[in-house]
Amino acid sequence: MSRVAHVNGTYLPHRHARVSIDDRGYQFADAVYEVIAIRGDRLIDAERHLDRLDRSLRELRMASPMSRVALRAVMDEVIRRNMVSDGIIYLQLSRAVAPRDHPFPAKARTQLVMTARRSRPEPEAWAREGVRVITQPEIRWARCDIKSTALLPNVLAKQMARESGAFEAWFVDRDGMVTEGSSTNAWIVDESGQLITRPPSDAILNGVTRQAVVDLARGEQLRLVERPFSLDEARAAREAFLTSTTANVMPVTMIDGHKVGQGGVGEFTRKLRQRYVEANAVSA
Amino acid sequence: MSRVAHVNGTYLPHRHARVSIDDRGYQFADAVYEVIAIRGDRLIDAERHLDRLDRSLRELRMASPMSRVALRAVMDEVIRRNMVSDGIIYLQLSRAVAPRDHPFPAKARTQLVMTARRSRPEPEAWAREGVRVITQPEIRWARCDIKSTALLPNVLAKQMARESGAFEAWFVDRDGMVTEGSSTNAWIVDESGQLITRPPSDAILNGVTRQAVVDLARGEQLRLVERPFSLDEARAAREAFLTSTTANVMPVTMIDGHKVGQGGVGEFTRKLRQRYVEANAVSA
Repeated sequence: MSRVAHVNGTYLPHRHARVSIDDRGYQFADAVYEVIAIRGDRLIDAERHLDRLDRSLRELRMASPMSRVALRAVMDEVIRRNMVSDGIIYLQLSRAVAPRDHPFPAKARTQLVMTARRSRPEPEAWAREGVRVITQPEIRWARCDIKSTALLPNVLAKQMARESGAFEAWFVDRDGMVTEGSSTNAWIVDESGQLITRPPSDAILNGVTRQAVVDLARGEQLRLVERPFSLDEARAAREAFLTSTTANVMPVTMIDGHKVGQGGVGEFTRKLRQRYVEANAVSA
Repeated sequence: MSRVAHVNGTYLPHRHARVSIDDRGYQFADAVYEVIAIRGDRLIDAERHLDRLDRSLRELRMASPMSRVALRAVMDEVIRRNMVSDGIIYLQLSRAVAPRDHPFPAKARTQLVMTARRSRPEPEAWAREGVRVITQPEIRWARCDIKSTALLPNVLAKQMARESGAFEAWFVDRDGMVTEGSSTNAWIVDESGQLITRPPSDAILNGVTRQAVVDLARGEQLRLVERPFSLDEARAAREAFLTSTTANVMPVTMIDGHKVGQGGVGEFTRKLRQRYVEANAVSA
């Protein structure tokens, strides 16, 4: 089966789907996006993703291309046409197609591209054994709360991770504090059993899986503290993990080549992952 | 006459020129670009632009799509087909077209888009009367030396300038130092007649016009100092100006609503602009 993409109201074969060279997403990264997981024919946390999309649009003063109801209808159609039961749907919205010039064009019509593909969750073996992260200097812009396509620093960090045999790179700011991963949020469990993750701010993207795990932790009455933590704290932590739409709750067993805790998957992390999987009926 | 664009070896009407939705320039801002001025059928400082393009590619470990000789031939053809005697040529190179995934794709074929259009230099009246700048917090990433398309912060700053009735926004870092404008380099002349501009580093793009003016100043044996300057210094300066491919040497007479010097175009700036125009036979 060949994939189908939605481009501004038209459905066409993915491999033929194109945007104008004057699309501001292409020329200026003047665009936002979302990736939503589909598990067993269900969208996971779609409303939270669409709330965040609305926020990104608002922060950049971009217009929504259509109502949420209409957007959901297009999403359903894209999923249907791609016959995706388990996978992801990708939405990218750019400000406009307009002759190249930095300021917002006078007439801006938000451009919508939507694709879907089948994919599995990250291998269960990774969740069983845990993954490695490396750290990289935080070099991104100061508005990481906006889910824009200005992802070049994230690309470079992920590539460094890949070349180091690691799953992810965690950014560390100039104060020695971990911000987040290149496409994931970062968490630790300290020696006292306290769960720690950075609170939403302009330094991180408020991950939807992050929000779900915060809720989960509160529901389970775990000792959750939202505060920045340092790389030193992360190295001394009992457990560490990361969260994202595609990785769910993924144990981290090594940071920059140093074992986290005993080097195995922590109890706390295992339990949280299990709860998350159960709550979303995610195939584990 | 309708414009013609070059896309990976093919010439086609600009309005029909498209790139894949899987172009990494579109999805990740994993792309670099150059804008080169054409004045009286001549490319201005083309070799310096292409040197910088090579550097951007190298820093991002992207392959050149072709030799410089071949690239120059394509540039000539794009200019010829668009019948541009005075205007600009735009080159954008992205890493690859590949299924969306942050790390570099295993097989990356650099994508090339090239366009040209007729345009005039900024109005001479602006150069005669000077332009206004506002300041904005420096929120960009830490590798502004790479001319990437991750331009969203630049877009936002330029938009703020536009809405304030200003020509440009100068970024000011957390130490109170001016880095550069959203698409221009920043210069001042202090009370003692010293010409000051920030030296190349990862905090600014080393503008080609900037380089040309540095050479000019050295040739004229002006007292040039390459060092960062603060916003306070800029406000207290005798003269200020900005440089870019399209603005040449543009006097700045107001910063954040405060007059620079007496509020008119400075002698030093006027002279430098004149020398630059003469050196490049730029229509003034």
